[in-house]
Amino acid sequence: MSKDFPTREENYSEWYNHIARKADLAENSAVRGCMVIKPYGFAIWEKMQATLDKMFKDTGHSNAYFPLFIPKSFFSREANHVEGFAKECAVVTHYRLKNDEEGKGIVVDESAKLEEELIVRPTSETIIWDTYRNWIQSYRDLPILVNQWANVVRWEMRTRLFLRTAEFLWQEGHTAHATQEEAEQEARTMLDVYAQFAEEWMAVPVLKGVKTANERFAGAVDTYCIEALMQDGKALQAGTSHFLGQNFAKAFDVKFTTKEGKQEHVWATSWGVSTRLMGALIMAHSDDDGLVLPPKLAPIQVVIVPIYKNEEQLNNISEVAIQIKADLEKEGIRVKYDDRDTHKPGWKFSEYEFKGVPVRIAIGPRDLENGTVEVARRDTKEKQTYQQTDIVHKVEHLLENIQKNLYDRAVSYREENTRQVDSWEEFKDVIENKGGFVLAHWDGTSETENKIKAETKATIRLIPLNNKQEGGKCVYTGNPSTQRVIFAKSY
Amino acid sequence: MSKDFPTREENYSEWYNHIARKADLAENSAVRGCMVIKPYGFAIWEKMQATLDKMFKDTGHSNAYFPLFIPKSFFSREANHVEGFAKECAVVTHYRLKNDEEGKGIVVDESAKLEEELIVRPTSETIIWDTYRNWIQSYRDLPILVNQWANVVRWEMRTRLFLRTAEFLWQEGHTAHATQEEAEQEARTMLDVYAQFAEEWMAVPVLKGVKTANERFAGAVDTYCIEALMQDGKALQAGTSHFLGQNFAKAFDVKFTTKEGKQEHVWATSWGVSTRLMGALIMAHSDDDGLVLPPKLAPIQVVIVPIYKNEEQLNNISEVAIQIKADLEKEGIRVKYDDRDTHKPGWKFSEYEFKGVPVRIAIGPRDLENGTVEVARRDTKEKQTYQQTDIVHKVEHLLENIQKNLYDRAVSYREENTRQVDSWEEFKDVIENKGGFVLAHWDGTSETENKIKAETKATIRLIPLNNKQEGGKCVYTGNPSTQRVIFAKSY
Repeated sequence: MSKDFPTREENYSEWYNHIARKADLAENSAVRGCMVIKPYGFAIWEKMQATLDKMFKDTGHSNAYFPLFIPKSFFSREANHVEGFAKECAVVTHYRLKNDEEGKGIVVDESAKLEEELIVRPTSETIIWDTYRNWIQSYRDLPILVNQWANVVRWEMRTRLFLRTAEFLWQEGHTAHATQEEAEQEARTMLDVYAQFAEEWMAVPVLKGVKTANERFAGAVDTYCIEALMQDGKALQAGTSHFLGQNFAKAFDVKFTTKEGKQEHVWATSWGVSTRLMGALIMAHSDDDGLVLPPKLAPIQVVIVPIYKNEEQLNNISEVAIQIKADLEKEGIRVKYDDRDTHKPGWKFSEYEFKGVPVRIAIGPRDLENGTVEVARRDTKEKQTYQQTDIVHKVEHLLENIQKNLYDRAVSYREENTRQVDSWEEFKDVIENKGGFVLAHWDGTSETENKIKAETKATIRLIPLNNKQEGGKCVYTGNPSTQRVIFAKSY
Repeated sequence: MSKDFPTREENYSEWYNHIARKADLAENSAVRGCMVIKPYGFAIWEKMQATLDKMFKDTGHSNAYFPLFIPKSFFSREANHVEGFAKECAVVTHYRLKNDEEGKGIVVDESAKLEEELIVRPTSETIIWDTYRNWIQSYRDLPILVNQWANVVRWEMRTRLFLRTAEFLWQEGHTAHATQEEAEQEARTMLDVYAQFAEEWMAVPVLKGVKTANERFAGAVDTYCIEALMQDGKALQAGTSHFLGQNFAKAFDVKFTTKEGKQEHVWATSWGVSTRLMGALIMAHSDDDGLVLPPKLAPIQVVIVPIYKNEEQLNNISEVAIQIKADLEKEGIRVKYDDRDTHKPGWKFSEYEFKGVPVRIAIGPRDLENGTVEVARRDTKEKQTYQQTDIVHKVEHLLENIQKNLYDRAVSYREENTRQVDSWEEFKDVIENKGGFVLAHWDGTSETENKIKAETKATIRLIPLNNKQEGGKCVYTGNPSTQRVIFAKSY
């Protein structure tokens, strides 16, 4: 595999697209804006799913499944919600095709028009709260802690693999609570779950905070989020958790009887992460030679490549390789032994490097003589020779080390690219020429936020949780400010 | 929970609906024909998914994900395929809503009409084979062994929870092969996987066979299937595996270069099971007191209920119960300890009986004195007293025993309800009054099959694999026949 794609420096966007496609993660489909997630990419997503699913269950949640379609009228019930989603809805209007009578092939059967149009869910608050009305009568029915793994559709005009697609896969948690405090706590707990997953599994450090009114989810009282910094200096929102107040309970008339016998509206949260995380994973760690994967999410953690000149050598090497594979697998390590005779070792080296396999073990005739193997790590490209007898221990240690190194590297990058800024000139200069997170004072108005966005494309990514309160002047208007917030250009 | 629903004898259909809804498996949604799968029902489906997914991976398959939408024109490419699915398609025609200018609320934005309508996938052969064209150049790219877990939509007019819904969840395997033999082998291998899953996990015995032309999948050369017998004497198709020949490769122009350098069309299979299996599971084992679940798929395998008069008793019982729970969980058994003080033991007994929990352990003050517990099994309702010291061993044995008993019971039922029939009068009598599988000679024509269906509603469920060849006369026409086939009314 020759180097046939730009470096990050040359063309970050092309670099990203090339890795996503050529590392067999995903590709565009024949349907505008919809992607195909290929087996190698899907295997990473499955590991994300399994890990998150366990974290959700460990925090008391169960999975369920709600309809793909939402009656159009449901959307109108919550005013902000419809405002937020109406412009990007796939609408089902008919339920039958037929042979055209004039021989023009298959056409929509106009006699099979739906009385009420159905929207392909862009998110499921409305259909779920319509359902919860029947599930909730008394405080004894609360809390409801439900999650759904599903596909959703938002008709985006400009799409990019994983980062922004018309259809994407995600999970959406929808919980119902008796009190405001409990719902707010739930929203923050799930934010912590997301942050823990991003940092411990994806090796992606994230900031935790709350969105401004401008960036809030359509229908939420508060939107909490985690934001990560990509290698081009742009921020990526990696997960959101919404405190919905009683908005959807009121829109769908969901009340419960309290212990004291009173009727009250139910409190709600919703929270989600999507296949967008795949985009974050690719961009956070990969380099100019291709994908770099954190070991915990890599479908193949170790690849073993034999180096041989004839079949006898291959047979001898295979004996050792298969034993090492078995020994590693016994420790729960995911190993591939690639003994295909259709490709040369050099080709295989490039291939697995490009696909981000964390550890490569090469075994040649000399190694057989010495009882050694050559071990290369993907993140730093370092190679070392180890004794075969010691290999399991070394590889276990190495995988942990790579996981940690990727995280540390990303933290350093973020630290180098987080800047405190106090003047409008400096603000524009940093956003335009350096990127990264910018900590600046803001006067707290949407108007100022909009103007800054119009002039620089930077938005307020979040107001950090437990943010330090300090007097200052808004970087744009000079009006009084009580705290610094995080600005960045973003995906 | 009082007995407020009909017996199987009184009204089988109502009995089924009641269990599906009231055991918290599923319910109808606000969207016509679409169901909500509730957490308890979804937990069963998750176990099915996890088990099947492992079986697919153990037979060499990987998961991937393809678009929800299919361009209308794709359907027309394979003539039988469009014929089979055109009449039940949800069609997306627009991609935006807007506020009505005359104040009538939210309406479809007519200016956002799609150039080509999109079909919500009823199955994915077309979009997948359009994708495979780019994945396959050479024999080296084959086989492709891919599976997808997804939702699909078929606009059924008459729907029933799990058995027939407009949207359902399923998996669809789509494989590509260099030779006819390999593809046929794959189709039969996956049929075996389905049969093994049905029998070993669901405890549902199935017949394996091939469909007649009438009942074949739209676009298949051969459709293999597994068929199970429900307690009302009707058959249920529980899984299908299709040998598609080169039909889709030709429709989507998917060719490969053979080892010898020739260009040939690729051979294909597809295979699927769906949430319909939940319907089969409910109907196969449940009784007039509610759901009965095979232990291997039960979300809760053992429930422990304390019987107490005061808090001190509860505390003492809880100590024992929590220890037993921990001991059982150490062996991988799924246990719930229900110490809620909002419900009485009798209510809990009925509740878990109705929800099909295989084993119930009750612990009262007398048990504490004697070091015993009372163990009840759901399938036979038998109760026994065991020593606490012996409980893990006894429960493990009991769960195996229940799993086996459910299977054996279903096999006996099927044997009692499989009848060899040689005259048309007898055929009509058995189909009308007894149900079950009917083994009868058939002259091999679609015409006869259609007439039998019109007169009796019975169809040929399958021609058994490796069917015994024996001369005879068609039960309907009297024409010569070479084998008996399986007739039944079906879901």
